[in-house]
Amino acid sequence: MEFSHISLAHGNGGRFMRELITGLFARHLGNPWLDTDVDAARVPIGDHGEIVVTTDGFTVQPLEFPGGNIGSLAVHGTVNDLAVAGARPLYLTLNAFIEEGLELAQLERFLAAMSAAATEAAVHIVAGDTKVVPRGQGSGVYFATTGIGVREHGIELGMGRILPGDRVLVSGPVGDHGTAVMLAREEFGLRGDLASDAASVLPVTQALLGVPGLRFMRDPTRGGLATVVHEIAHATGATVRLQEPDIPVRDPVRSVCEMLGYDPMYLACEGRVVSVVAPESADAALAAMRSVGCPEAAIVGEVAAGRAQAVLVTELGGERLLEELEDDPLPRIC
Amino acid sequence: MEFSHISLAHGNGGRFMRELITGLFARHLGNPWLDTDVDAARVPIGDHGEIVVTTDGFTVQPLEFPGGNIGSLAVHGTVNDLAVAGARPLYLTLNAFIEEGLELAQLERFLAAMSAAATEAAVHIVAGDTKVVPRGQGSGVYFATTGIGVREHGIELGMGRILPGDRVLVSGPVGDHGTAVMLAREEFGLRGDLASDAASVLPVTQALLGVPGLRFMRDPTRGGLATVVHEIAHATGATVRLQEPDIPVRDPVRSVCEMLGYDPMYLACEGRVVSVVAPESADAALAAMRSVGCPEAAIVGEVAAGRAQAVLVTELGGERLLEELEDDPLPRIC
Ligand SMILES: Nc1ncnc2c1ncn2[C@@H]1O[C@H](COP(=O)(O)OP(=O)(O)OP(=O)(O)O)[C@@H](O)[C@H]1O
Ligand SMILES: Nc1ncnc2c1ncn2[C@@H]1O[C@H](COP(=O)(O)OP(=O)(O)OP(=O)(O)O)[C@@H](O)[C@H]1O
Ligand SMILES: [Mg+2]
Ligand SMILES: [Mg+2]
Ligand SMILES: [Mg+2]
Ligand SMILES: [Mg+2]
Ligand SMILES: [Mg+2]
Ligand SMILES: [Mg+2]
Repeated sequence: MEFSHISLAHGNGGRFMRELITGLFARHLGNPWLDTDVDAARVPIGDHGEIVVTTDGFTVQPLEFPGGNIGSLAVHGTVNDLAVAGARPLYLTLNAFIEEGLELAQLERFLAAMSAAATEAAVHIVAGDTKVVPRGQGSGVYFATTGIGVREHGIELGMGRILPGDRVLVSGPVGDHGTAVMLAREEFGLRGDLASDAASVLPVTQALLGVPGLRFMRDPTRGGLATVVHEIAHATGATVRLQEPDIPVRDPVRSVCEMLGYDPMYLACEGRVVSVVAPESADAALAAMRSVGCPEAAIVGEVAAGRAQAVLVTELGGERLLEELEDDPLPRIC
Repeated sequence: MEFSHISLAHGNGGRFMRELITGLFARHLGNPWLDTDVDAARVPIGDHGEIVVTTDGFTVQPLEFPGGNIGSLAVHGTVNDLAVAGARPLYLTLNAFIEEGLELAQLERFLAAMSAAATEAAVHIVAGDTKVVPRGQGSGVYFATTGIGVREHGIELGMGRILPGDRVLVSGPVGDHGTAVMLAREEFGLRGDLASDAASVLPVTQALLGVPGLRFMRDPTRGGLATVVHEIAHATGATVRLQEPDIPVRDPVRSVCEMLGYDPMYLACEGRVVSVVAPESADAALAAMRSVGCPEAAIVGEVAAGRAQAVLVTELGGERLLEELEDDPLPRIC
C-alpha cells in the first residue's frame, strides 16, 4: 500500500478502500468463507443448512436527510446486501456508538425509523450493544448492523455467471441518495427538494429472482453505478458498455452535479439494484421491476467480449472510460 | 427516563444503560427474539435449526494495553458472549470505524491480534465493512463484531433455572482488565505490570458444560461481578450472598482500587466466567475449571431465598449491599 496513514479515501468505495480491505484486512483475517467480492457471505450451519451473512456501518452526515435518517439507512443498507445476494433477511444485530450529548429525542427518531424499516422488511433485531463515546470523539451516533438471512430460491448468482451479450439494468434513477445527503449539508449552500432513494430493495430482488437468466445483482452504494460496472468488468475480464442516454438520472441530480463538479455515475444509491441478465431475459427483468413500483427501471448497457473495462457511451456517441474511483467524491454518505 | 441527553453513564453497564436499552431501544425494536436479559439470542433457522447470535462494540482507550489491544478484545468479547450462552462460536462479522490519520502499522497490529484470537477460538471472520470518519470524530478506531454460533450440548441455561441453595463461582481473579486499562492511561500517573485478563473463555465454558447441575454462566464485563450478581438477584427474586474473603482479587488490583477509590467488585473482566451451579455440583465445577488452567477459580457465594438483593459479606463479617451501578466508574474499558 502506498500510504502509511488512513485517509478519507480509504472509506469511499473506490481503489484505496479496495486495497485496504484486500491488502490489509483480508490478508490478516482471510479464511475460506471471507470473500471480499460479494455483498454477503454464504456459510454452512450444521450438516445441511446454510445462512447468508453481511454487515455494514453507518456514519452518514447529517444524521437526518430528506427520505430517511441514519436509523432507517442502517436497516435498509444491510437488508439490501442480503437481498442482492438472493437471500431473505431474517435477523439483524445492532451496534450503537453514541456520542455523549446526543439528544434522546433524536435517538428516538432514529429508532422509530429503524423499527419501521425492520417491520417493512420483516426482519427482527435480535441482539444489540450500546457504547457511549466522549463528546468530540463521535458525531452524534454511528450504527452498525449485521444481517442474517436464508436463500429460498436455489438460484446461483454471481459475477462468475456473467457472459458476453448479457444486459445490465438499473431499477431506477441513480445518484439520488448522494445528492440528497449533499443538499442536506449546509456547507454546500444549496437547497432542493430531492429525497434520498433509501429503501428496501427486497421487492425488486424478489421480482428479479423470478426471472430465468438472472446472473447477478448488486446495490450500487458507495462508488455508485460506475463502481459496480468497473467491478464487473474486472471480475469477468469483459467490457461493460453503458449507454449514457439510457441511464435514468433525475434533473436535480444532474444540475447539482454539474454545479459542483460531481459525476452522477459515481454517486451512491441506497435503494437501487443493478442487475445483469441474459439477453433474452432483459425485457422480462424490466417488466418484473416495473411491476413492483419501479417505473423508471431501465436496460442501460451490455457486456461484450474484449478487454476488462467499463465504458460509457455518451449522448454524443463518444466513449468515456469509467475508471476506478480514487479521490473521495463525497465522504460520509452512508 | 430522567435524562434528555446521553451521558457517559449510559454506556457503563449499570442502571442508566439498562434503562436506555429497555426503555428506548427495546421499546422501539422489541420483537419475540430480542431478550435484553441474555448475552446472546437463540433464534430459529429453517424448520429445525437454531443459531445463537450476539454483538458487541469496542471503544477501549488506550487502544493497546498490557495483555491485548482493541483487535483481540473485539474477538474475545464476542466469542465470550457466545461461550457463556453455551454455544460454540462459528462466524464473526467485523465493522471498522477508522479515524482519518490512524497509522496503518497500528491497524495492522490490531488485525494480527484479531486474527490470532479468531484462530484460537476456531472462529472465521466472514464479512466486514470499513468506514473512515474525519479526524476528530473518532478515537483511532472503533470495532464492532457480531458472532454466530451453535449450541452443541442440549443443556438449557438461564437465570430462570437458578434455585435457592445454588452456588456462585468465578473462574479467576476479578477486575484485572479494568485495572490494567486504567494503568495504561497516562491520566492516572500510575505504573504497574498488571495484564488484562482478556482471553477466550471457551475452554472454561466447555469444561463447565460437562458439569451436571450447571444453571447459568455470564462474563462479568462492564459493571463487573457486582453487576452480574445484582442481575441474578433481581431476575430470580432471591438474595445472592458473596463472601468477600473468597473472591479472588490480585494485590495490584486491590491497591490501585484503594488508591483511586474504585471497587474491584464493579471493575470489568474480559476473560472470566461467573457461573451458578447446583450445590452438589459446586466442587465438580471448581475442579472442571481448575483442569483447564484456572487455578484461582473459586466458589464465592450462594443463592438464598429472601428478598431480591445482592449482598457482600465482608472480611469482618459485616454485610454490604451491592447496589446497581450508577455513575460510570471507569469509561471506555471495552
Ligand atoms: N442498542 C441495543 N439495542 C437492542 N438491544 C441491545 C442494545 N444494547 C444492548 N442490547 C441487549 O441488551 C442485553 C445486554 O447487553 P450488554 O451489552 O450489556 O451485554 P454484554 O454484551 O453481555 O455485556 P458487555 O457489552 O459489557 O460485554 C443483550 O441482550 C443485548 O443484546
Ligand atoms: N474491514 C473488513 N474486513 C473484512 N472484510 C471486509 C471489511 N470491509 C469490507 N469487507 C468485505 O469487502 C466486501 C466489500 O465491502 P463493501 O462494504 O464495499 O460492500 P457493500 O456493503 O456491498 O457496500 P457498502 O458498504 O457501500 O454498502 C464485502 O465482501 C465485505 O464483507
Ligand atoms: Mg452491497
Ligand atoms: Mg452495503
Ligand atoms: Mg454488549
Ligand atoms: Mg456478556
Ligand atoms: Mg459482551
Ligand atoms: Mg459495506
